[in-house]
Amino acid sequence: MKAVEIRDTWSLDSLTMTERPDPEPGPGELILAMRAATLNYRDALMVQGGYGSVGGDLPLIPLSDGVGEVIAVGDGVRDFSVGDRASPTFFAGWTGGRPTAAKFATSLGGPLDGVMAERMAVPAESAVKVAGHLTDIEAAAYTCAGVTAWSAVLGHGGVGPGDTVLVQGTGGVSLFALQFAKFAGARIIATSSSDEKLERVRAMGADEVINYKTTDKWGKLAAEMAGGDGVDLVVEVGGAGTLAQSVRAVKVGGQIGLIGVLGGARSELNLPLIVMRDIRLQGVTVGSRERFQDLMRAVAQHRSRPVMDKTFAFDELKPALEYLMAGRHFGKVAVGIG
Amino acid sequence: MKAVEIRDTWSLDSLTMTERPDPEPGPGELILAMRAATLNYRDALMVQGGYGSVGGDLPLIPLSDGVGEVIAVGDGVRDFSVGDRASPTFFAGWTGGRPTAAKFATSLGGPLDGVMAERMAVPAESAVKVAGHLTDIEAAAYTCAGVTAWSAVLGHGGVGPGDTVLVQGTGGVSLFALQFAKFAGARIIATSSSDEKLERVRAMGADEVINYKTTDKWGKLAAEMAGGDGVDLVVEVGGAGTLAQSVRAVKVGGQIGLIGVLGGARSELNLPLIVMRDIRLQGVTVGSRERFQDLMRAVAQHRSRPVMDKTFAFDELKPALEYLMAGRHFGKVAVGIG
Amino acid sequence: MKAVEIRDTWSLDSLTMTERPDPEPGPGELILAMRAATLNYRDALMVQGGYGSVGGDLPLIPLSDGVGEVIAVGDGVRDFSVGDRASPTFFAGWTGGRPTAAKFATSLGGPLDGVMAERMAVPAESAVKVAGHLTDIEAAAYTCAGVTAWSAVLGHGGVGPGDTVLVQGTGGVSLFALQFAKFAGARIIATSSSDEKLERVRAMGADEVINYKTTDKWGKLAAEMAGGDGVDLVVEVGGAGTLAQSVRAVKVGGQIGLIGVLGGARSELNLPLIVMRDIRLQGVTVGSRERFQDLMRAVAQHRSRPVMDKTFAFDELKPALEYLMAGRHFGKVAVGIG
Amino acid sequence: MKAVEIRDTWSLDSLTMTERPDPEPGPGELILAMRAATLNYRDALMVQGGYGSVGGDLPLIPLSDGVGEVIAVGDGVRDFSVGDRASPTFFAGWTGGRPTAAKFATSLGGPLDGVMAERMAVPAESAVKVAGHLTDIEAAAYTCAGVTAWSAVLGHGGVGPGDTVLVQGTGGVSLFALQFAKFAGARIIATSSSDEKLERVRAMGADEVINYKTTDKWGKLAAEMAGGDGVDLVVEVGGAGTLAQSVRAVKVGGQIGLIGVLGGARSELNLPLIVMRDIRLQGVTVGSRERFQDLMRAVAQHRSRPVMDKTFAFDELKPALEYLMAGRHFGKVAVGIG
Repeated sequence: MKAVEIRDTWSLDSLTMTERPDPEPGPGELILAMRAATLNYRDALMVQGGYGSVGGDLPLIPLSDGVGEVIAVGDGVRDFSVGDRASPTFFAGWTGGRPTAAKFATSLGGPLDGVMAERMAVPAESAVKVAGHLTDIEAAAYTCAGVTAWSAVLGHGGVGPGDTVLVQGTGGVSLFALQFAKFAGARIIATSSSDEKLERVRAMGADEVINYKTTDKWGKLAAEMAGGDGVDLVVEVGGAGTLAQSVRAVKVGGQIGLIGVLGGARSELNLPLIVMRDIRLQGVTVGSRERFQDLMRAVAQHRSRPVMDKTFAFDELKPALEYLMAGRHFGKVAVGIG
Repeated sequence: MKAVEIRDTWSLDSLTMTERPDPEPGPGELILAMRAATLNYRDALMVQGGYGSVGGDLPLIPLSDGVGEVIAVGDGVRDFSVGDRASPTFFAGWTGGRPTAAKFATSLGGPLDGVMAERMAVPAESAVKVAGHLTDIEAAAYTCAGVTAWSAVLGHGGVGPGDTVLVQGTGGVSLFALQFAKFAGARIIATSSSDEKLERVRAMGADEVINYKTTDKWGKLAAEMAGGDGVDLVVEVGGAGTLAQSVRAVKVGGQIGLIGVLGGARSELNLPLIVMRDIRLQGVTVGSRERFQDLMRAVAQHRSRPVMDKTFAFDELKPALEYLMAGRHFGKVAVGIG
Repeated sequence: MKAVEIRDTWSLDSLTMTERPDPEPGPGELILAMRAATLNYRDALMVQGGYGSVGGDLPLIPLSDGVGEVIAVGDGVRDFSVGDRASPTFFAGWTGGRPTAAKFATSLGGPLDGVMAERMAVPAESAVKVAGHLTDIEAAAYTCAGVTAWSAVLGHGGVGPGDTVLVQGTGGVSLFALQFAKFAGARIIATSSSDEKLERVRAMGADEVINYKTTDKWGKLAAEMAGGDGVDLVVEVGGAGTLAQSVRAVKVGGQIGLIGVLGGARSELNLPLIVMRDIRLQGVTVGSRERFQDLMRAVAQHRSRPVMDKTFAFDELKPALEYLMAGRHFGKVAVGIG
Repeated sequence: MKAVEIRDTWSLDSLTMTERPDPEPGPGELILAMRAATLNYRDALMVQGGYGSVGGDLPLIPLSDGVGEVIAVGDGVRDFSVGDRASPTFFAGWTGGRPTAAKFATSLGGPLDGVMAERMAVPAESAVKVAGHLTDIEAAAYTCAGVTAWSAVLGHGGVGPGDTVLVQGTGGVSLFALQFAKFAGARIIATSSSDEKLERVRAMGADEVINYKTTDKWGKLAAEMAGGDGVDLVVEVGGAGTLAQSVRAVKVGGQIGLIGVLGGARSELNLPLIVMRDIRLQGVTVGSRERFQDLMRAVAQHRSRPVMDKTFAFDELKPALEYLMAGRHFGKVAVGIG
């Protein structure tokens, strides 16, 4: 089979189409004929060595998000049949329950081989059937960003009808957070630096929008839009660049789901504001297979689809990652496989 | 009746013994003949205007923690009788349920009048009967620091048997956190800069101790003492001075209860460590009357007592606060009333 | 002011229009000029003495569900102004936190005076502002049945997107449970003995319907409709008549919210089925003021309205209760006041 | 290797010592040299066909609770080394997260082969390291009854300091529930029909005891012992024989953990009492591997030991089960292996 490897060094130029032996299904395993993959910002960092020791040894098959068709099942597999479409989970070892450092050491696309291969052996316990109404590239869109958004909004966040959720920008996690918070009956405030993008999130169901370029102290405005007390949940992807405003936006007893650090890794935090307002900052690292299954069940019920941007060919991973890094996409960037 | 007021300006010198009319019980109210009060660091800041706008208008009766005897009850009071000993809650308006900004605006000792008076009218809904085995000054010790520790350990923390809890130093919240975590069957790691104090917390049940003066990177050591994965909960009172080590000490998926900022209010936070390890930082602001009742029920059952340091007379509040600020106490500093 | 009393004996014929002095606002109280009330089956039982000792002393003003306009506020009331519309809570003493026997002893319409009066003094802590888009009779519909449904679905039930909820029949609680579960993004299975009523619940958003007259062993069918594993939550209002099928319908680890006992009070329960499938049976008794506020916030956001049946005049309470007991209504039966 | 099988029919007489090939470790598997097993009432029923279709196909190796030494590890096993002592989990397929019907179909001792063999291949994900201070037979005591008690008390029950827990009789689950509730700082009320047994549970830490033979309406007494409101949790093992009294014993908003049905499977339930007091009945079916690990961590920390009764030899399973069924034991009945 063909696969893409990060071969010798951690760099975009090291991405190489290669030939590997077809995998055989061990006990409890599925063989997936991969159909599509999608990109996360993590993949771009990882290929370039940006996650340091997390990446594992080279050569490494990159990317965590993909979907394939089951073409063989090993002994003892009961929940999957040949012909099913399935997605491997981001952490192969986190099926359910609490996170642990050991489970976090099992992520696809580094340190474990990822999805950029024609065939992939996956433990049935680490695979999730995908909703029937989704195309292959759509179905491949949820693994990392989707599950992260689900964990932030429905897992840790416990968002329900009447809650107000603030989502930042129009990255993958934020768009999913918007969709899932809408599923849950919440009210959405979305921020962006682009009025055009704000129009698009409004069309997706955002109830209120804020251009943070023209309103730089948007925390107080968001709190007012939420009725004065503040929002129930901020899905924080900006990190150092936005956290101070998020703390202003959130209500007493509210929650900030810390996901991304696009605006910088080290943030000066005003601790008394956190303490004296009973605020929760919750780090969110993707989620378990159980959460992915919950997500997919809800996506199927709501016949929801991810926002897709552009699809590249199997041998175009480098330009696809460059396109992602350029940051002009709106929605997921995909790669077709097989 | 006599009462102590912060009279004209926010300063220790403004503390004045004064005469006020005896309160009458309105519907649903108790009259308490106050017996004892205890001090928190907050009181020292408050008297000196350190909480700014929170303090309310002058003159103000200071201190939030006190206990008295019920000497009269208003119409409709069912749960209290004359002769009961009771403690007003820290937030008069937070009986149960979620915190809100409105509830947080009802704290005793600023903006509402506090406990430094011979008589006090208290809504029955804002009072808690105290355990019979406690002396008056002991019973007065739990209102702010005790309930805060309870919320951190048993409320947000959800600590149970087998968990490891790290407590910092030997301030009021930390000593209560140690006691309550022991109630709950947890293992305790205690830190201090004084070997002598570490001996005392060991005698109180700390399983492991760390002198953070001689071990400045104590986070990793604490994680090892907890079995390698990290501690389940850090009760963080140091703020900027300690948060970086607390993040190292806590396990994947663990929690840091943010309570105090003794070491500084603004902390630079390493956000990716929070995000990538699913860590929760939870601001903790005292707690509801329901939590105070839960605390008192457990204290009664375990026949537990607070650690008491020194008791001052009713007219010695200024020296008592100065003694507190000097920081050489171990346990609660109290004031006898009536 | 005029008020309706259950005067001498517990019976419909004892309902009497009477004159009482206008209430004055005590500290922390509102005076409501009542506008509308709605009926629950509990009211019909209560008037006839069916709740026994719960009913309190006669004469008693009946009914728990009503809405009025604030015409005066007592000292210390901050959250309400003259002109606001508000609804008293079902339990005057349950503002938040856990239920207790003492809180349960404070229900309106017995033992405490209820809402069938032109003026009503209500503690601000026991009142909830109603959503602006609702008419008076609509706003009066949520107090008992609405909050009960909210507690069952969003409180104890924790229902979210992708969950399947089964609602039984078309009584007040069931119709609200359907609406609130839809808010939360759930899938709905509704049962009824009438195909015509099933059409109406389908129009309200039920995804699947079952006529339990023609499918008496509906538990298994419901489990299949939910995808084979069973439904996540049954909102059980039938009691003895339906519980056995509910146990069949619910998934392993699922929940049955026990609300009503229309089909009989004593049920033979197959305990091993409960034990061996980790099923939760959760008694649901209305809910706190906090839940009522959450409900109203969601109703406002979704601009949702209750299903209303017929409205009677202030002096027609007896025929209104008789109409309710006849059981041919679909939606809430209301009474206009003032 | 030698193993005990239920050979041809479901009966005690069908238990046969047999020879089976030594297992080889597959990927991710451990080979355990079994040292000890303990008995549950379920085993006695299972051997005699009492669980019907649950039992699986014959021949079957019985018993779910055992401990062995790791003598070999398969590829990819990281958390275990040769020489470790480990216990297989009750449900091989329930590592963490929510229960499902599929996970419940993976119980040892039927339908999957159990622990009565000299060697056993176990997925590392289904094994738990046991505390070092325990003997082999002690370590084998927790798998089913211990984890069940842990789930009831610390999982679903959420018991903490100050809570009152009622345990019934002196069976395996009840004695573990007593120990674990003590870990968690709770107060214990224990019931039994034997004053002598009540002395023994008092020695184990029960704070109050009730002889239900001499006090048949013990529910009200238990509620009074708990301070009048009722107990927080009843660990219900009697089923039909005791549930009515448990409902009387528990407080408003309290919980009954339904575990056993020793007194009968079909119980007439007074539903209005459940509904109107917000009571939760929670079926409890053992628990996940994660819960077992939590239990073992707490047992290690508290250096706790199970109550052991008598130990039989490997070829004495039939008399051991007969001894268990005679019901005169106090503590776990064990079988030595290898």
